Amino acid sequence: MEKKVISKAVINRLPRYYRYLGDLLEKDVVRISSKELSERMKVTASQIRQDLNNFGGFGQQGYGYNVEYLHSEIGKILGLDKKYNVIIIGAGNLGQALANYADFERRGFFVKAIFDVNPRLVGMSIRGIEIRLMDELEEFLKTNEVDIAALTLPKTQAAQVASDLAKWGIKGIWNFAPTDFNLPKDVTVENVHLAESLMKLSYRLSVKEKEQQEKEQQ
Amino acid sequence: MEKKVISKAVINRLPRYYRYLGDLLEKDVVRISSKELSERMKVTASQIRQDLNNFGGFGQQGYGYNVEYLHSEIGKILGLDKKYNVIIIGAGNLGQALANYADFERRGFFVKAIFDVNPRLVGMSIRGIEIRLMDELEEFLKTNEVDIAALTLPKTQAAQVASDLAKWGIKGIWNFAPTDFNLPKDVTVENVHLAESLMKLSYRLSVKEKEQQEKEQQ
Repeated sequence: MEKKVISKAVINRLPRYYRYLGDLLEKDVVRISSKELSERMKVTASQIRQDLNNFGGFGQQGYGYNVEYLHSEIGKILGLDKKYNVIIIGAGNLGQALANYADFERRGFFVKAIFDVNPRLVGMSIRGIEIRLMDELEEFLKTNEVDIAALTLPKTQAAQVASDLAKWGIKGIWNFAPTDFNLPKDVTVENVHLAESLMKLSYRLSVKEKEQQEKEQQ
Repeated sequence: MEKKVISKAVINRLPRYYRYLGDLLEKDVVRISSKELSERMKVTASQIRQDLNNFGGFGQQGYGYNVEYLHSEIGKILGLDKKYNVIIIGAGNLGQALANYADFERRGFFVKAIFDVNPRLVGMSIRGIEIRLMDELEEFLKTNEVDIAALTLPKTQAAQVASDLAKWGIKGIWNFAPTDFNLPKDVTVENVHLAESLMKLSYRLSVKEKEQQEKEQQ
């Protein structure tokens, strides 16, 4: 069987296509040309066609894309036609923010439990989701099918918890701690490094500031 | 004057170098070879040398890098030798999480105020930072120098607030709303699209699942 390897750059763009198509759906747009989509997304039309051709195309020359169909097909590629059971580890502000984000459910991600080391939080619940003590985590994973663990822990604790999770069979980790893990290959880790994102912003601001200063000196 | 254009890929890696070097500093490591650094970071040593050569190198052949010096130089490239005044717009869980993250201060990002539309939150404060009503935003920006606004708002409100901020002189936006903005070129936007990150995780999980199924069928 021939297998096409999809580049990381294409995969990085897919969720954005999905988001734009979702916005169009909300506005009851039925059909869109790659040109129109490209203007909205600020990506060239040929880039869009190339990206989508990786998955078979979905469009007819001169006829545009059916928004609902394309949205649903990209959703399938992204694995959004399945349901994922999620646990959140760390019930601080960030963990609570994730638990409160109802949009995740709409896309098939269901938060089943929140864990924290702080006994004072135990028994509380967020949107009906109970906060449990970390001590219960192993037992919970034995009796519940969990696909993804979101880690909103300090970096000092995150590595140990991540390797425990791997040992207990978790295959997907959504990591918010500012650290990278050494985990078996069958565990998929997606990192959200907030501090690094902020540094990219400060980099770009300081480059612009330098350019401005150089202009003024000329 | 010759000007070197630094590729986006290099810039994306710089905050990670900075983080790793910071971890080494905390462990009192004085010097590190590109080989050692490469093993820790899971990047090839030649990649590291190439990346750093963009900025003049910082190392001596066969002698390795001085950790403190390299950390500080990369910090300068990232604009972390300056101080940034930050406001947070949206005092929900995510806004509170950002306000509570003391590490940002260590890197020069100082949260000066938090704004929200909810009058019930006004007068409360997070780590000594007052929550103010959105109505006060324009006046606040007239009397305070603000470099960066972090937007943790629903997407329905974010675009309007972003264009107001641009109008009122804000040059840096750290956007957490699941939407892109149409702003003047002198405004720098760095996006954190959490839902898109989660979709990348589900994509990778579903690819692995398919591979697993194919293996089992062989």
